Amino acid sequence: MIKLHGFWRSAATFRVRIALNLKGLAYNEDMIDLDAGEQHAPDHLQRNPHAAVPVMRIGDAPPMTQSLAILEYLEEIHPSPPLLPADQIGRQRVRSIALDFASDHHPLIVPRIRHYLADHLEAAPDQIREWICHWLREGLNSAEARLAADKATGEFCHGNSPTIADLGLISHVMAARGFQITTGALPVIDRIATNCLALEAFARALPLRQPGAPATH
Amino acid sequence: MIKLHGFWRSAATFRVRIALNLKGLAYNEDMIDLDAGEQHAPDHLQRNPHAAVPVMRIGDAPPMTQSLAILEYLEEIHPSPPLLPADQIGRQRVRSIALDFASDHHPLIVPRIRHYLADHLEAAPDQIREWICHWLREGLNSAEARLAADKATGEFCHGNSPTIADLGLISHVMAARGFQITTGALPVIDRIATNCLALEAFARALPLRQPGAPATH
Repeated sequence: MIKLHGFWRSAATFRVRIALNLKGLAYNEDMIDLDAGEQHAPDHLQRNPHAAVPVMRIGDAPPMTQSLAILEYLEEIHPSPPLLPADQIGRQRVRSIALDFASDHHPLIVPRIRHYLADHLEAAPDQIREWICHWLREGLNSAEARLAADKATGEFCHGNSPTIADLGLISHVMAARGFQITTGALPVIDRIATNCLALEAFARALPLRQPGAPATH
Repeated sequence: MIKLHGFWRSAATFRVRIALNLKGLAYNEDMIDLDAGEQHAPDHLQRNPHAAVPVMRIGDAPPMTQSLAILEYLEEIHPSPPLLPADQIGRQRVRSIALDFASDHHPLIVPRIRHYLADHLEAAPDQIREWICHWLREGLNSAEARLAADKATGEFCHGNSPTIADLGLISHVMAARGFQITTGALPVIDRIATNCLALEAFARALPLRQPGAPATH
């Protein structure tokens, strides 16, 4: 059985949950409460000195960290259904889109950044909220420009079946919706998000459907 | 011939230069002056709507972005010498370490962030400098804890030959040194950085050895 140390709201954990569901791999999730600072507890730091989630445990292997590296591992051990295209240029594109979301934007809005802004730059709550919304919107707008301009985009980010690029996209879109940022004016992203959420593997992994999530958002 | 659109100081471009050198692939680099805002010029936005470097062009393929996705592509088309281990768990670890540097820390200190801090949060120059130094130190300290605790660490991040994890490490270390942050108190990182820089493929790719770099730093 696969064990996941995650958190209901964590975009990175959301990505891994979707991949596990798509590949039909059963898992148990143990929630690390990021709001309560449980990521800094000694037992979690031993799993991941970077004090982040998710951490995946599988058999006797060392704890695995970093969602995109976990997705690559899952793709290697359980290649069907594939979450990367068969061709090299396609794989480069899909990995690049996933990184646009997961690397260039998501790390800007996590708790440690919010704390630094408040504690060291004396940012007010509404300034922190605007910081988060700014980077969420920037990520959406540049992704819309990229996806709309490229004929490799289909019903999903790359062609007509989900890849790790879509896991990056949907985790960003759902984070944005959590801050009342809609995607109605971004037709390509909106279409892909709708197609993702129509799949049970995505819907079942949604943050608000996990233990610990608030009943309304 | 491979064409790289990069910038002398860019940590992400540095990583790609090292990989090209290690694999013996010739390239030409066209410098996009990030300080002058050339990443926002229409011709560059056409290559990369995210307004970032590097962008790699190879033959007739579409422009390739995101350094880690470019490294995976180079590994696929030119697997020797390998920059990923042969085993799945080792590859997961190496990719995860690379992401610790390239995804969790590097995006926090790039020009767009510095501009936002100054323009929207009225951060003073010394506060921006402290922001950068804080995240550079955080990345170094958590990486030292991770690498020191794991027996898979060797003369390099993973065993005794360079992998993409070392490309992440050295790009972070050199960025830190640019801000007078030394690694003498972090013995594992210091050893690995020394071993990296002893290799000509790393040394030749160094930011300060590129066109446009200042004569002294």
